[in-house]
Amino acid sequence: MLDVCLLGTSGMMPLPNRWLTSCMLKYNGSSLLIDCGEGTQIAIKEADRHFKSIDIICITHFHADHISGLPGLLLAIANSNRVEPLIMIGPKGLTKVVQSLCIIAPELPFPIQCIEINKKDEYFEINGYHIHAFKVDHKVLCYGYAIEIKRQGRFDIDKAKTNNVPLSLWNKLQHGETIVENNMTYTPDMVLGNPRKGLKMTYCTDSRPVRCIVDAAKDSDLFICEGMYGDEDKKEKAIQKKHMMFSEAATLAKKANVKELWLTHYSPSLINAQQYLLNTQKIFNQTYLGEDGKYIDLMFEDEE
Amino acid sequence: MLDVCLLGTSGMMPLPNRWLTSCMLKYNGSSLLIDCGEGTQIAIKEADRHFKSIDIICITHFHADHISGLPGLLLAIANSNRVEPLIMIGPKGLTKVVQSLCIIAPELPFPIQCIEINKKDEYFEINGYHIHAFKVDHKVLCYGYAIEIKRQGRFDIDKAKTNNVPLSLWNKLQHGETIVENNMTYTPDMVLGNPRKGLKMTYCTDSRPVRCIVDAAKDSDLFICEGMYGDEDKKEKAIQKKHMMFSEAATLAKKANVKELWLTHYSPSLINAQQYLLNTQKIFNQTYLGEDGKYIDLMFEDEE
Repeated sequence: MLDVCLLGTSGMMPLPNRWLTSCMLKYNGSSLLIDCGEGTQIAIKEADRHFKSIDIICITHFHADHISGLPGLLLAIANSNRVEPLIMIGPKGLTKVVQSLCIIAPELPFPIQCIEINKKDEYFEINGYHIHAFKVDHKVLCYGYAIEIKRQGRFDIDKAKTNNVPLSLWNKLQHGETIVENNMTYTPDMVLGNPRKGLKMTYCTDSRPVRCIVDAAKDSDLFICEGMYGDEDKKEKAIQKKHMMFSEAATLAKKANVKELWLTHYSPSLINAQQYLLNTQKIFNQTYLGEDGKYIDLMFEDEE
Repeated sequence: MLDVCLLGTSGMMPLPNRWLTSCMLKYNGSSLLIDCGEGTQIAIKEADRHFKSIDIICITHFHADHISGLPGLLLAIANSNRVEPLIMIGPKGLTKVVQSLCIIAPELPFPIQCIEINKKDEYFEINGYHIHAFKVDHKVLCYGYAIEIKRQGRFDIDKAKTNNVPLSLWNKLQHGETIVENNMTYTPDMVLGNPRKGLKMTYCTDSRPVRCIVDAAKDSDLFICEGMYGDEDKKEKAIQKKHMMFSEAATLAKKANVKELWLTHYSPSLINAQQYLLNTQKIFNQTYLGEDGKYIDLMFEDEE
């Protein structure tokens, strides 16, 4: 199960009753946070999530509304008695930005390992999260993140027997270990069926709607995407500021064949997102408005 | 009239429904902000104050809960179309801290002038605010601020005549100008009576209760002071962390002969401040609990 919580939905600046856009995932006891604007630590508390399990923080870009809450969050994590290292992933320059912001959080009890993304596409595997960072099209260097939880095949007793795997090794192989015994190498695939469908969520903000987003988000169970404006009269502004319309996010969602789309990163000028929803759903039916604290438990296909 | 608004009352970290401690003053169209933790820009909006008139930001010290909201606030001020310079006052090191935090707000449309306090006591006069920065006793270098609005004497026609001030100069002198005419220098005091009582508010957080706070806060109309803990069982913790008890703040208020005391900078562990109020009022009767957005219009004695 993958728990996904959209902590906030505001773009540009936090508002009373609208936290800045960020998203927190939890899988197998390990949490991953994407972006951390001013107030995100409060949003985490309001959403009843916890600081200590945050192992990974992915940053899309260095505009203040996506990272200004970092020092406060790191101190909140420190206050949760975390001492384990924390991994940060973000665009080139991440190390310097983190160091600069941490001038007011100089004595953290845990080390931070910064991983700077250097290519258009990069892939990481941490704590079961398969993270694909993909470069999008914003005013500054900016990445989206597609995050997958893979799922191995079922244990296949016939395959194990056919491959002459000793009974004593079945359990370990099933749990992913590779074992060498009597000069034979036994690998998990020798006792497992074909990999089963895993879980995938894709997060993209801020960007114009470019093709690589469709590719990265392909077949996601959940696609969280910026919808800066609903009103089509603001399209010129969206193009100029390198943001996205509701309709453009929906078009991406349709092309990427995702299960559902949550809109977020609303402009402060967007008071009533609801009024644009019907038209957006005409483009992609499974469009939903993101709300602060909205969450979903993504389940493996036969998991209940 | 001096408008004083306590924007938040939390210490250490912002909480759902409790903004970090900071305070905004407005006098004669010019606003002065003391401290700026994470979320202060939202607190300013909630308190229905405005960004554009913020001419001065005083910082008590560089712990994150007192300055982490700075980049977001500066961007909000930028967004209000301000182009006029903004003055920041704070402990030694201010320039570096501001520069570091502004790595995520690199292109502000207004210049920032940083004034670093170098002595135990320093005095500034900006836009009618007479600011006394006084060093207090915290874990890091920290200052309190006593802020006065002075008030000149009434126009005194007899004095003007006695001093042989030409009638044509009376108005200018009354409004503070010094004029040289016919080799004679005319100063405002030649047409004005004794200065009248002005307005004074003093702000102190974070500190142990030391004598210099009493001296600085002397006869204030309003004393806003940290009360980290109400429960006397936490006194050891207060001493160790260099914070102040409700009772200690009240004792300072009494000694300083202030008109009223507002407590603030509550520990996140302090859920019900009310339960400690009665005992605190036994020490200083005019003690009030600070609340987010609590404000007062301090009036000159005969002003209505």
